[in-house]
Amino acid sequence: MILHDLNPGMHPRRVRIFLAEKGMSIDQRQVDAAGGANATPEFLRLNPLGKLPVLELDDGSVITESLAICRYLEALNPDPPLMGRTPREAASIEMWVLRLDSELSRPIAQAFRHSGEFYRSRIKQVPEMAAWYRDYALDTMAWLDRELSERSYIAGAHYSMADIVAQCACVLGKAAELRIPSEMKHLTRWFAEVSSRPTARA
Amino acid sequence: MILHDLNPGMHPRRVRIFLAEKGMSIDQRQVDAAGGANATPEFLRLNPLGKLPVLELDDGSVITESLAICRYLEALNPDPPLMGRTPREAASIEMWVLRLDSELSRPIAQAFRHSGEFYRSRIKQVPEMAAWYRDYALDTMAWLDRELSERSYIAGAHYSMADIVAQCACVLGKAAELRIPSEMKHLTRWFAEVSSRPTARA
Repeated sequence: MILHDLNPGMHPRRVRIFLAEKGMSIDQRQVDAAGGANATPEFLRLNPLGKLPVLELDDGSVITESLAICRYLEALNPDPPLMGRTPREAASIEMWVLRLDSELSRPIAQAFRHSGEFYRSRIKQVPEMAAWYRDYALDTMAWLDRELSERSYIAGAHYSMADIVAQCACVLGKAAELRIPSEMKHLTRWFAEVSSRPTARA
Repeated sequence: MILHDLNPGMHPRRVRIFLAEKGMSIDQRQVDAAGGANATPEFLRLNPLGKLPVLELDDGSVITESLAICRYLEALNPDPPLMGRTPREAASIEMWVLRLDSELSRPIAQAFRHSGEFYRSRIKQVPEMAAWYRDYALDTMAWLDRELSERSYIAGAHYSMADIVAQCACVLGKAAELRIPSEMKHLTRWFAEVSSRPTARA
């Protein structure tokens, strides 16, 4: 297997942290997206959307979408479980993964895309969208802060895929001028904790 | 189990079609979101995000997010499989589910929210966002049209969760002035086919 990776990307980071938590290692190939290497005919054969990460299997077929890649890797290497052992546990973690993806990762990513220098020449930026998603992300952070007053991690007592999703969103938040406001004590405590795991720099 | 449902909603429709394809039936309770019933303290205890659908289990715990609900129901009732039998099949279908959710369902939903009458008093509408997402959704449709020139269904030769996601997006598209352009022959053929399944009106 080869993991086509993009070091600074939010979604590739999910997969790298996931692999590190599993103690797995896969051949990684950096794709120079800033230099346009994700828009070549060769790359678009791997993923017509031009997005990363991409997991290329030994038979040449591919899996894209970070969450689908992680679930596949979880099936190959169930321990330690990051997506739940039973259908009920898996459902609860997936609920949190999807909530975080929708309510935090995407708003931060859209705020970043529609305001950042990097995307200026790459998409049609709409400043109103950056502002709208910034407010949205801050509302989500306030909600998470309340949720995290009651438990250690996003989906319960244990670190899971939901924490990985939220943590990668908050890393991008630092580049998007969307840092966790310091008055959000519980969210700040959680982010310090997950960021101090040995896998956080994967 | 009780499925808290919202008849016209895109996400609840996914779960209803999924249940119909499985031949499962669950007690359903309509939530009058137009009348604010999803914003009452009682409902917010079920889902603090105020969103539907919500699956309430017999022990009173809940699963939200349509894709997490469907995966849980798939685990309870594996036949017919709609999310793949093997990890490899499951990964391929999940890849397509997530692509469609991100590239089609969300853009159509955002175009609808930021232009539709229903949301005028409910969110801060940004007309530029409606326009941006409309263009985005049309680009996705053109891509899907090319993909569907090569196979019967979104993720391969069989109807799957990926078709359900795309089909519910296209149903909302009709209300958002985002109908499939008639020159997109393959996507039009696919939508006619999935819409004629007995489960499409679930």
